[in-house]
Formats: sequence, C-alpha cells, structure tokens
Amino acid sequence: KLLDALHFQTVVCLPFQREGYGAELGLRITPLHQEIRSADLLIAFGGDGTILHLARTVALHSVPVLGVNLGSLGFMSELEVDELDRLRDLADWSFDVESRMMLDVSVLRGGKSVYNNIALNDAVISKGSIARVVRLNIFTEEGQLTKVGGDGVIASTPTGSTGYSMAAGGPIVEPTARNLLLTPICPHSTRSSSYVLSPEHVITVEAPDANRKFVYLSVDGGKAFSLKNNDQVRVSTSRYTTKLVRLSKKSFCEILDKKMGGEVTKA
Amino acid sequence: KLLDALHFQTVVCLPFQREGYGAELGLRITPLHQEIRSADLLIAFGGDGTILHLARTVALHSVPVLGVNLGSLGFMSELEVDELDRLRDLADWSFDVESRMMLDVSVLRGGKSVYNNIALNDAVISKGSIARVVRLNIFTEEGQLTKVGGDGVIASTPTGSTGYSMAAGGPIVEPTARNLLLTPICPHSTRSSSYVLSPEHVITVEAPDANRKFVYLSVDGGKAFSLKNNDQVRVSTSRYTTKLVRLSKKSFCEILDKKMGGEVTKA
Amino acid sequence: KLLDALHFQTVVCLPFQREGYGAELGLRITPLHQEIRSADLLIAFGGDGTILHLARTVALHSVPVLGVNLGSLGFMSELEVDELDRLRDLADWSFDVESRMMLDVSVLRGGKSVYNNIALNDAVISKGSIARVVRLNIFTEEGQLTKVGGDGVIASTPTGSTGYSMAAGGPIVEPTARNLLLTPICPHSTRSSSYVLSPEHVITVEAPDANRKFVYLSVDGGKAFSLKNNDQVRVSTSRYTTKLVRLSKKSFCEILDKKMGGEVTKA
Amino acid sequence: KLLDALHFQTVVCLPFQREGYGAELGLRITPLHQEIRSADLLIAFGGDGTILHLARTVALHSVPVLGVNLGSLGFMSELEVDELDRLRDLADWSFDVESRMMLDVSVLRGGKSVYNNIALNDAVISKGSIARVVRLNIFTEEGQLTKVGGDGVIASTPTGSTGYSMAAGGPIVEPTARNLLLTPICPHSTRSSSYVLSPEHVITVEAPDANRKFVYLSVDGGKAFSLKNNDQVRVSTSRYTTKLVRLSKKSFCEILDKKMGGEVTKA
Repeated sequence: KLLDALHFQTVVCLPFQREGYGAELGLRITPLHQEIRSADLLIAFGGDGTILHLARTVALHSVPVLGVNLGSLGFMSELEVDELDRLRDLADWSFDVESRMMLDVSVLRGGKSVYNNIALNDAVISKGSIARVVRLNIFTEEGQLTKVGGDGVIASTPTGSTGYSMAAGGPIVEPTARNLLLTPICPHSTRSSSYVLSPEHVITVEAPDANRKFVYLSVDGGKAFSLKNNDQVRVSTSRYTTKLVRLSKKSFCEILDKKMGGEVTKA
Repeated sequence: KLLDALHFQTVVCLPFQREGYGAELGLRITPLHQEIRSADLLIAFGGDGTILHLARTVALHSVPVLGVNLGSLGFMSELEVDELDRLRDLADWSFDVESRMMLDVSVLRGGKSVYNNIALNDAVISKGSIARVVRLNIFTEEGQLTKVGGDGVIASTPTGSTGYSMAAGGPIVEPTARNLLLTPICPHSTRSSSYVLSPEHVITVEAPDANRKFVYLSVDGGKAFSLKNNDQVRVSTSRYTTKLVRLSKKSFCEILDKKMGGEVTKA
Repeated sequence: KLLDALHFQTVVCLPFQREGYGAELGLRITPLHQEIRSADLLIAFGGDGTILHLARTVALHSVPVLGVNLGSLGFMSELEVDELDRLRDLADWSFDVESRMMLDVSVLRGGKSVYNNIALNDAVISKGSIARVVRLNIFTEEGQLTKVGGDGVIASTPTGSTGYSMAAGGPIVEPTARNLLLTPICPHSTRSSSYVLSPEHVITVEAPDANRKFVYLSVDGGKAFSLKNNDQVRVSTSRYTTKLVRLSKKSFCEILDKKMGGEVTKA
Repeated sequence: KLLDALHFQTVVCLPFQREGYGAELGLRITPLHQEIRSADLLIAFGGDGTILHLARTVALHSVPVLGVNLGSLGFMSELEVDELDRLRDLADWSFDVESRMMLDVSVLRGGKSVYNNIALNDAVISKGSIARVVRLNIFTEEGQLTKVGGDGVIASTPTGSTGYSMAAGGPIVEPTARNLLLTPICPHSTRSSSYVLSPEHVITVEAPDANRKFVYLSVDGGKAFSLKNNDQVRVSTSRYTTKLVRLSKKSFCEILDKKMGGEVTKA
C-alpha cells in the first residue's frame, strides 16, 4: 500500500537506485520492476511491512535492500529516519549484507501447481472468519508430523518468528539460524507447541474440510488464496534469499531488546 | 444444521416433549418454535453443538434441556448414547437443573441497537480472514480495561471457557462460577493473558479500524455480523439462563477429567 | 525484610497509627503487634511486598491498610511516594475501604493440623530446587479436580492473580471478583491451563512423593513448610479479609494499565 | 537410580556388551566405567532417564547406546520391551547411528572453571525452593540477549526440547536440528518466549542476586550446583555427541506422535 506512490530516481553521487515517496514532490517516478534490473541496492522507506512487500522482488533479482524505519516496530529495517546520514557509508560500499532465509510456497491441485510464491516471513493457512475450527494434516517428507484442529497453522522463517508466529505463542528464532518453524494458531485439542525443524524438510499441509469451511493461504500477509479439499500446500526452504544491508554492527540481540521495548532494561 | 430435520412428538408415558432425528423414520415432525411453548423439557440429541444451537430458544422459554452426546467431546451433554435408559429417571421428575449463565450481546451503531443476541458460550470479535491485525479497545463501565492488537477477543461465560477461549489460552472456569471472561486471540503487543471479571460489569468492545479491516462479531459460533468503525459491541450478564438437566451426580471435575481424555489418569 | 526496621508513632493530628522507616531518624519505635490493637488505620510504606507481609496482621485485627509505593510495581499500594499530600484526605475520614478476599491455608497430618496461615496472594506447593518433577493430586470437596506433574501448583486469590500465578500463565482476575484460582507451574503432561473456581470450594492438594522429592508449601512468599507424603494441604476462602484504603477513584482497570507499563497505550 | 543395580556381561552371540537388571538373577556384574572402554555398543534398559544418566559416559567414550523403554514415555529409547527380538538386527550390524548434539556446561568463578559437565538434555539455572524471583542476565558472545526475572532459565539441546523446556512453554525442536534453545521459567515481567539460536553461540548466564537468593545449576536433572554472585555459567555446543542406535526406520515425527499420546489421531 505504501508503495503505490513509490517513485525511483538515480541519485548521481551514490551508486544505487533511490526510492522515495510522493509524485507530488515533483519527482520522476519509474516502475520498480524496470529499475530493479539495473539497481545495485534498494532503499525501502517505511518499515518492515515495506521490506516484506518488496522481498519477493529483491530476492528474485538478488538486489540487497536497506530498510529505513518510518513506523513503530522494525526487526528488518536498518536505520531509523533520524539516522539517514549513515547512508553516506554506502558511498564507499562499506557494509555487510545479511542473507535471510525464504520459503518456497506452492499449492498442488490434482498434481498441478496452481499457486507459487516466495515468503520472507511466513505462509499462513487459516480458517475463514466464519468457520470455527479447521482441521489440518501436516506432513514432512518423512511422514505425518501432527494434526492441528484450530484456527490454522503458520509456517515461518526465522525472520518471521517475531511476527504472527510469536503472537500465536511461537519462539523467537535468531534470523541467522536455519530453521523451518511451524506454529499452530489457537489449537483446540493438542498441546500448544511450535515445531522447530531443520531447513531441508518439505512441509505439506492438507485441509480435508477446505471445501466446506473456507480455508485460506496467505503469504507474508498478502492476498488470500482459497484452498480446496485435496489441495496440498508445500512449504520448503527457498534457494532465494532476501539480502539485507547492515550498516551498523547492531546484533540481533541488541535490535531485539531495543525493538521489543527494552525488556532487558525492564526485567 | 442438525436440527433442520428435527421432529417432535409427545411421548405418552413421560411428561415431556421428545425430539428425535429423521422424518425418514416415519415420524411426524413439528416445528421446535411451536412445541417449545408447551414443552416441559427438551432432549437434545447430538452433543454440545446441538445444545449451543438450541440455547437461545430454550433460554427464552425457560425450558430445561437434556443433552445426549452422539459426538466426541461434550461438557454440556448429560448422557452418552449408551446411557439412554437413565431417561427413566425423568419419569418421576427426579433430577436437578443447573442454571448456566448467559451473555446479552448487542451492537450499538449511532446510538441505536442494530444487533441483539444471547450467548451460552461466547461472543467473538475477530478479524476477517484477510486482515492481519485488528485493533480493539476494550472497556468496562469503569473505564478502559485493555487494548488488544491481534486476531481479536473472546468474551465468554464460564460454560464457554472450555471452548474457543481455552484454545486461545484462557483458563477453565467452573460452570457454576459467576464470571465474565475476556481472552485475547493471538495478541501481538501485549502479554497474553485472560481477564476474569465479576458478572456485574458491562463490557464494551470498539474496533476503530473496522471499516478498513473487516471485523466480525460471532455469537456461539453462529453467523458473523460485520462491524463498522464506530460500532460498540456490548456484552453483559443476561437475565436469561440455560437450564441443563442433571440426571447423574457427576461433578464438573469428573466430567472435565473424563471428557478431556483422562488428564487425571495420565498425569 | 523492609519491615525489620519499622517503627511506630502516634501522629497527633491524624486519627491513626503511623509507621515510618528508620530508628536512625530519632523516632520512637514500638512493636506493630502492640500498636495494631488500638490502631484505626495502618500506613504501609514500601510497596506490595510490605502489604503482603502485613496482611495477616491487619486482617486478624481488621485494621484497614494504606499502601505507599516506594518500589517499582504495585497493584495494592494506593499512593506513590509523590502523592503523600493526599494523606490529608484521611483527616476527615473520606475514603473507601476495599475488602480483599483471603485464603485459609492449613496442613493436615495424621488428622491433626500442623500448619495454619492466611494468605492475601497465594499458597504455592512446589518442588524443592533439586527435584525435577513433583506429582500433585488436587481435589475439591466434590472429588478429584486434576493431577499436576510439574514444578507445582499455585492456589491464589484474585489479588494474587497478578503475582506468581500470572508468571505461570494464569489469568488476571479482577480483585473484587470472588474466585479461587489454581494455576499449575510448568506442567509436564497436561494441557497448561488455570482453573477458576467458585469461592465456596475447599481445595485439597496431596503430594504422594513428598517424602522422596522435597515438596514445600509457601504462603504469600513466606517461609517454606516441608510437606510429607500423606499431608493434605487445605485451601479455602477465609472469613478474614485485607481491607485496603482507597483514597483515589482509580479503578482496577486504570491501575492495571498504569502498573503494567501502559499496555493500553502501547497496543 | 535404576542403574544402581546394573550389571554387565558379554553375550557371546552378539558383538556388544549387554547390560541387564538384577544381581539377584545370579548374573555377574562389572562396573560400567571399566566395560565401556572395550564396549562396542551399550544397551540401556529403563527409558529416557537411563539414557540421560548414561549420556556423559557414552559420549566421552564414543560408544553408541540403544535404549529399551521400560517406562511410560520415551523420545530417545528405540525399542519397547516387547520388541526385544529386534535386537537380532544388531547381529549383522545393520543399524543407523543418530548423533545427538550435546552442551558443554561450565561455571567460571574469578576467572577459574569451578564446574564442568556435558549435557544431552539441558542445563537449568533456577531459584531455590524458598526464593520467589531470581534475576538472570543472559548474554551471547555478541552482547546481552535478554534478562529474565522469574523462576530461572533452561538452556537445552533439541533433544532436551521435549523435556523440562516444553513444560516451561518451549517449542519442540527436531532432534537432528542444530540449535541452542533458551526457555525462561515462569518469567514475571517479560513476554514468555523461548529463544532458538544457532549452534555456534556461547551463552553466558549471570545471577547477580545469587548470594542472597540461592540460585542453582542442574545439568540433565542431576545434582544441583550452588551459584555465587559473580559466577558465569557458560553453555555452548559440545564436540561430544550422544550416539543413539536406530534399528527401526521410525522418524522423529512418528515417535513424537506415538509418544505424545496420539495427538495426531486425536486432533
């Protein structure tokens, strides 16, 4: 949404494509999907939501992204809006790039792929707003992992662990860890526990009541895809990654503490 | 749904209206809303879902209901299907009636009531399936109680505490306790905790983003009512109660242990 | 601990016994247990811990207590240290008194009572620091309620719900609600859920492995009492209450929000 | 405890040291620490507790262990007692060995190591039974990770994730995943969440109130070690591993489902 009004211009003194808000500022706007091909780096103003929205694009083109946080809470954004002078560090290309694991998410229907996406945060399979309980069968390539009766399940990356997964009771997974995370949403009949798996698994989720109950797949909070009874949602580690520019030496621990409202100082 | 094919007949030897399944059995079926007026007692075959469906009707007519459990898990049903001979105890009217607290649920829009219902289990205010986070402001008549950013909130009776509320992490409230229970659903920014309140409070829930985010009210798992920005959902203890027939001397403790799969024996 | 150095003096212009810190200030100190008999009101400087420590004494003598918070987090304290001028309101006796439910806690051994106490917050039955799992059988007068295998169980009042019980995952119970609350501590084999009961129950906790595993009872965080195999810990609503002086019109909701670090404003 | 009466004998037809119960059976018993040096494989009768007890010994000598479950719940045991005929598969050495990650646990006091151990499940730093809250500062080599105010913290391996860590609300980590898991125990002031970290971190836990509050370290549920104020508990991935013999092709998923009481079938 924030990106609807995005425009792009080449900033002469810096070796990357710059994005900014507002055509009303008299700036020339060019489409992201054109510019990204020749871009060396993307600066995303807005916050984690903006990065999430751009993740697929930058990952497919292997362009690193630098987030500038305009909002309230950001795990992926590197700079706050009052730290913009640190952008000068980009000039001499003195920054680290952190590769964040992504998920390949697809839906198989009658043997054919009917949906394909990549996720930086998560793939959520959940009930429609009317249904009360949805039943999901969850497999790895080794066999059935568990069944969930409840609101749904979240398959997430370490990056996504601090998002919806945490709200559903999941653990905080360090972003540089390599894990697939499965967190049930309001499970009715099983002990409420997340599963932390090795990254080489292929997870399959089936919703046998999907026709009757309205079950949806949503990737990184995007547009919901409606599932049918015999659909198989496949989730696995992607070969694509989101490359985040790191200008500071802030560790995940420091960011976590700072962003989560100073638990460390409060405790 | 189960009740669509319900029929009623007077069983001569027993002083109550009997309901059963199946017109295909050659039985005469009469509408529930007619028969309920002259009924002394209603037997609900099916399980807790059936009782839940009937709760509004029996409460308004103050007719006690006896549940016969045909399904898997029942906290409100009194008899299992293999205990039907205990119905003979009804003949000499030797049974207790347990009154279960209900909720008055209404929606105020521009000062007018646009929705009214009574709930035996719960009133759920939650996001549509597409929205990611809904923000709710929750008040009692004394002032603001809390804010919830997440999937929504469940206002439930003690009876409803073992339903969706428990799946969302809420406590088990003894059915004969007199409490209003508020349980947030996957809260993003607050400590995940239920609120147990005295029964005399009037709870108001407002959803300031309702227009943009699709926020719904659902009572006892029934049809979703779509909320608007300035709507006020009011929840308070109802003067109506659901009267459950108790033939056995089973306490809540025993039922709980039995129905929840023998935690007591497993632990 | 804070109270070790407590002293008492009669303040001439106000009709109650005043307590303060520090004999080093040259103030005459008299024992609390003497002064309490003739006191009309007790002012406790320190915080909730101080009130908790004094609760048994003020309850037995039915003396209302006014807490002045010197520490970080207080649900029971009425005034912050910078609000001391509000004590003038006491002069014309214009304040409300809120009665907080307490628990009678006793231990029966071989038919005899070997321990007796009253609790404002909670009675905790838990393992010693070496034992890994303790097994507890929990009954009401109606029969077995549940078994807990884990670190222990907390029986708490509504007042105690925001203490250790909340840390163990229990709900927030409004202080004026009348409920007994049971919260298992790190339960191993059962679904982690609190029980909210009516206040008229008598709860019995038995620890069949107590001899071998070191199981302790601690009331309001006080000195641990070592349990034996056939001991029965009895917990029920006390006829005593702690009377808290309320000078402000702050509701529980406001206090909760303020004390819990502004969840309402953050959410 | 179960191992107090263990004896060892060489079974001629099978290429490994066999252990069994009961000197009373007239069997010759030899000490484990002698026999382990020349053993090719150890069979542990008893359950996960037995394996846990033996883990340090078999890891240091790099001897694979095969668990035979005599108890109720086992994640590490390979065979149930009624599957003993599968031991014949050992004859032709046709089995897989699964290496389980272990933890190096040490305590630094004044720059010197005063405690050293290796853990298959977990290292628990927790309060004594009397103390109410212990404050812990938790660091990685990159800086402070979090503070915990509560009953303590559990540092566990993936293997240990289904033990005490799960009781404290932690996630299930697949045994073959490579992660360090930190789970706070009944945290008072922070959001209750586990941390899943990469295996290369060195975790340091400090207990600044240890002198006054009695804080203990316990490795794999063993003898508690009393911590002092300036002690640093160090936890990191060990170069040692516990090698578990796998006769069946049962995956973790299947074992998990079976051992956890058929969540899959119940859901």
